[in-house]
Amino acid sequence: MRIGIDIGGTKTAAVAMDTDGRLSEQVRQPTGFGDADVIATAVDVAQQVTALSGRSLADVSSIGIGIPGAVDSVTGRVSHAVNLGVHDLRLGAAISERLGVSVRVENDVKAAAMGAHHLLAETGMANGFESMAYLNLGTGLAAGIVLGGRLLRGGHGVAGEVGHIPIDPNGALCSCGQVGCVETIASGSAIARMWPTDAALPAVDLFEAAGAGDPIAIDVQSRFFEGVAAAVRILVLAADVDVVVIGGGLSALGTPLLDGVCASLTAGARVSPFLSSLDIAGRVRVLPLGFPAAAVGAALTGVDNG
Amino acid sequence: MRIGIDIGGTKTAAVAMDTDGRLSEQVRQPTGFGDADVIATAVDVAQQVTALSGRSLADVSSIGIGIPGAVDSVTGRVSHAVNLGVHDLRLGAAISERLGVSVRVENDVKAAAMGAHHLLAETGMANGFESMAYLNLGTGLAAGIVLGGRLLRGGHGVAGEVGHIPIDPNGALCSCGQVGCVETIASGSAIARMWPTDAALPAVDLFEAAGAGDPIAIDVQSRFFEGVAAAVRILVLAADVDVVVIGGGLSALGTPLLDGVCASLTAGARVSPFLSSLDIAGRVRVLPLGFPAAAVGAALTGVDNG
Repeated sequence: MRIGIDIGGTKTAAVAMDTDGRLSEQVRQPTGFGDADVIATAVDVAQQVTALSGRSLADVSSIGIGIPGAVDSVTGRVSHAVNLGVHDLRLGAAISERLGVSVRVENDVKAAAMGAHHLLAETGMANGFESMAYLNLGTGLAAGIVLGGRLLRGGHGVAGEVGHIPIDPNGALCSCGQVGCVETIASGSAIARMWPTDAALPAVDLFEAAGAGDPIAIDVQSRFFEGVAAAVRILVLAADVDVVVIGGGLSALGTPLLDGVCASLTAGARVSPFLSSLDIAGRVRVLPLGFPAAAVGAALTGVDNG
Repeated sequence: MRIGIDIGGTKTAAVAMDTDGRLSEQVRQPTGFGDADVIATAVDVAQQVTALSGRSLADVSSIGIGIPGAVDSVTGRVSHAVNLGVHDLRLGAAISERLGVSVRVENDVKAAAMGAHHLLAETGMANGFESMAYLNLGTGLAAGIVLGGRLLRGGHGVAGEVGHIPIDPNGALCSCGQVGCVETIASGSAIARMWPTDAALPAVDLFEAAGAGDPIAIDVQSRFFEGVAAAVRILVLAADVDVVVIGGGLSALGTPLLDGVCASLTAGARVSPFLSSLDIAGRVRVLPLGFPAAAVGAALTGVDNG
């Protein structure tokens, strides 16, 4: 049995996976803050999901962990996971010591990309697909690219960082220091900026207001769709991936998100025979609600890389 | 012996390559216009380069051809090579029939990408590099991506088509139908638009005027550098390639081009710790003047794919 753990800013999820790649159990709980609590949460969910499976840690062949921030997947070191209060932590070694199981650590978006790819393969949707990009729409925007079933890491581990490609010289200042990055239009933080509200979920509030006919909401929503469409187009034009799977917190917006992004892509293709020939809208999917992509991918990472 | 042929808009070049991958002979001549003349030119340079090598066609194990336009590398069919007057031609079969040698056809930018990679490998520059992008600055802008020594083709053969990623909503109309594409700022056609002149080589004229202190030329040149820098940044952020090699007609601008692009990348990194950590300027190279990258890559294509 393998365990995959997704350490997120608010919750930590764990999945247990049979040797045939099927999920058996899932648990989740609030993430602790700071090195010690992040480790304790991860250890706890690993023990819980093992117990729920009716097994012991001796039956666990590997643990994979997905976590935000800069991850050295060779050493298991995590840095700059600011939202978790983790600045420089040898996470892999710490968990491995506590549980006596080999641990691999991976950036959460890269892990989710592998999880999304696994889902496509399991459901038969990956038949005929050679390549896939996973586009994570959360507080920020980032992507992971899977070619021939393998994660594209790149020379510095930034392959898929399309969120920080500037697409508007007159756009907003990005947290990365540049101006008009894709992330300033197509992300949770972008919606929060463009649609100021007291609602707990600004994106849901925006979509509801737009659905109710609010002209400003419709305008903001349309800019958001165009930003996501731009990210999809960049992934297709740069890497020519067969499929772009949208995941992350905002993917819970579901069909209205998919329809809006595809409508923007279709409108773009209408003025460009070149784009039209690529059928980019036809390549977009949204991750099913609740599918624990990062935890699933993390479980597989533990296997793929030893 | 292998032969590689680069059919360009103005000239057709051919190289002969030993079995150890070294160039032995090169020839070039003006390209004919239309199906029959394009075929005749290619047949002629193949025969010439074979004769110069002191060999016969019986010694030629394969012929690879690089040509602009949409190329089906499986069937050897070429379409939309507008500048050559070729609209739909089974080029591979036609040449193979005339010369009795197996022929593979590849898009010229993809072929040049393989040629540039071969050069890096031959010169020892590719040591430690896992991935490379070849950025072709010609009339238009396009790139080819080489990962682990293999060309990234993508699902629809458009991997590396970063020239048609829009980066300025208020930019110029692109030939592809979109607005503000990278190609409208960073290409020969962009320079011709931004720097109207009767000079035979607008880019050289622009660089000379900028070098002489003309403020308008300096401004146009700076926009061009920023556009090329944007293309480089897109290739690094999307695919995280270790090296970006600039080739194509404009690469003859040499050191001033390299320096200008790197200065723009460095200025961009100054405002962004994220970009700064990636050392993008340190990844840029310019193809040596006169190196027949597309012909060399075409010769290798003939081998790689059977």
